[in-house]
Amino acid sequence: MIKVGIVGYGNLGRGVEANIKNAPDMELVGIFTRREPESIKTESPVFGLDLIYDFKGMIDVLILCGGSRTDIPEQGPMLAEYFNTVDSYDNHAQIPLYFASMDHVAQTNRTVSVIATGWDPGLFSLNRLLGEAILPKGNTYTFWGKGLSQGHGDAVRRIEGVKDAVQYTIPNEELINKINIGEEVVYDSHTAHTREVYAVLEEGADAATIENEIVTMPDYFEGYQTRVHFISEEELAANHQGLPHGGHVIRSGYTSENNHQLYDFKLQLGSNPEFTAAVNVAYARAAARLAKEGVRGAKTVFDIAPAYLSPYDADELRERLL
Amino acid sequence: MIKVGIVGYGNLGRGVEANIKNAPDMELVGIFTRREPESIKTESPVFGLDLIYDFKGMIDVLILCGGSRTDIPEQGPMLAEYFNTVDSYDNHAQIPLYFASMDHVAQTNRTVSVIATGWDPGLFSLNRLLGEAILPKGNTYTFWGKGLSQGHGDAVRRIEGVKDAVQYTIPNEELINKINIGEEVVYDSHTAHTREVYAVLEEGADAATIENEIVTMPDYFEGYQTRVHFISEEELAANHQGLPHGGHVIRSGYTSENNHQLYDFKLQLGSNPEFTAAVNVAYARAAARLAKEGVRGAKTVFDIAPAYLSPYDADELRERLL
Repeated sequence: MIKVGIVGYGNLGRGVEANIKNAPDMELVGIFTRREPESIKTESPVFGLDLIYDFKGMIDVLILCGGSRTDIPEQGPMLAEYFNTVDSYDNHAQIPLYFASMDHVAQTNRTVSVIATGWDPGLFSLNRLLGEAILPKGNTYTFWGKGLSQGHGDAVRRIEGVKDAVQYTIPNEELINKINIGEEVVYDSHTAHTREVYAVLEEGADAATIENEIVTMPDYFEGYQTRVHFISEEELAANHQGLPHGGHVIRSGYTSENNHQLYDFKLQLGSNPEFTAAVNVAYARAAARLAKEGVRGAKTVFDIAPAYLSPYDADELRERLL
Repeated sequence: MIKVGIVGYGNLGRGVEANIKNAPDMELVGIFTRREPESIKTESPVFGLDLIYDFKGMIDVLILCGGSRTDIPEQGPMLAEYFNTVDSYDNHAQIPLYFASMDHVAQTNRTVSVIATGWDPGLFSLNRLLGEAILPKGNTYTFWGKGLSQGHGDAVRRIEGVKDAVQYTIPNEELINKINIGEEVVYDSHTAHTREVYAVLEEGADAATIENEIVTMPDYFEGYQTRVHFISEEELAANHQGLPHGGHVIRSGYTSENNHQLYDFKLQLGSNPEFTAAVNVAYARAAARLAKEGVRGAKTVFDIAPAYLSPYDADELRERLL
């Protein structure tokens, strides 16, 4: 059995806990938290994060479930000194720097750190690479949604007069249909996605004023096609509590002048954090196995042969899935 | 530059030739054929297959473009003794045996042989593995089409009174829609696909008799929903000369009781052989690079880290695609 530790117990940490139960070859050693361990409601063992170094040698791989803004950049290099790690660091612009820092620590301390797994970065990145490598003459399009965008929901909730709100990002299906038939399209973030807001007003707030404030908000909504729906608190509670997400990576290319080839990878996720966690868990298996083989350093989804993600052996995989 | 040789010059070999032109890091050393080299119409260098051993050391990887029934099982082990090879061997049931035979030759002779690339086996296999590894609680569904099925077209053409014919395999969209929303479905080859035949009759042939002969043909059409269209020779020539194909690999799973997650990989190919060739060429790059690193033996798409398929270096891939 592969012994796993979870660092951080928000939505993602809970998702990892759930997914480890689905893995036939893994056991959860413990959840490590900065909060009071007693305050965490779970049947799994919970420990204070300060005790984690006592578990050196008893954990094959740690899955880091903190935030990408401050937790992971700090915890990653500290923990990679003692453990193999997997994370879903998702600050795209900072990935090269984060990779360099993790690679240095992991090479020095002879550990394996798989960084930036999940679905974007992660499976979407993998498909961007495959699509481009197979169809070098073509274009890659990434569409997100339909899915809940946390940052945009936060922005709407900060508007005076808004009691609560959620925001869904929705891919432009008309554009996708054009890509599907091989048309070249103008793709930018403003034309590729529309935004749908469901907001609950405070008593006495003026709907027209708030709608205008939303759709003209710079950086978040300005330039996008945005639809605002005002709904009751009850409706928000009943229909908008999930964390759905997903999207497409499409490679549209030509192998010769007249032959259009379409490569389309799509995810439609009932729970974004649980699916991200499912990918983390599969890459945790890979990290533990690579470490056992003596591999060292930071790795990404680009560096790991797919067979490492499966609990089944190579003979069975060839016979059953090839 | 990676130096490539092509063995066999049918649809697939021509596809490989076209795709090598799209690769920035490859050059075609020659096409090797059992036919008279002078009879091959191409601007690329053509040699008799019997001369291939003179090219040892001058070719980094051979792409084997013969048929899976007799060519590849014979040529694969012979050529892997002297060259790194890539093939799209597609006899699913015989893959374990073929792998063993190629692995033995390649290990003994210190070459690399990537077998069974293409899209099924190949990219579809890769997605069956990834979907299952990430969502262990779920079901995998493979749908083929809309696409031209060569074997079924041949079977119809053998019927007396049929002058010419093509057959398209079409996935059952109703079933796919049910899978998309997380329903469990009964999936078998008869319910998952329908068959569409376009046939040209010989003069005086009876349409009703032939239609009945088609739809009741054991193994090929019996048990399937089959639609037969009788068309003119001109219409067949105008609208049915392409070699389109494609399909889906869908993994429908649950990460926890209520959270349905859908993983969907789709190909929509204007030319089946040219796309298969495009995948061969990307794996040829991987084979040449693995061999240079000292790796030996037979490999499949499961064993190769995605970065090996791309001509770009790891830093650039992380920065641009992760």
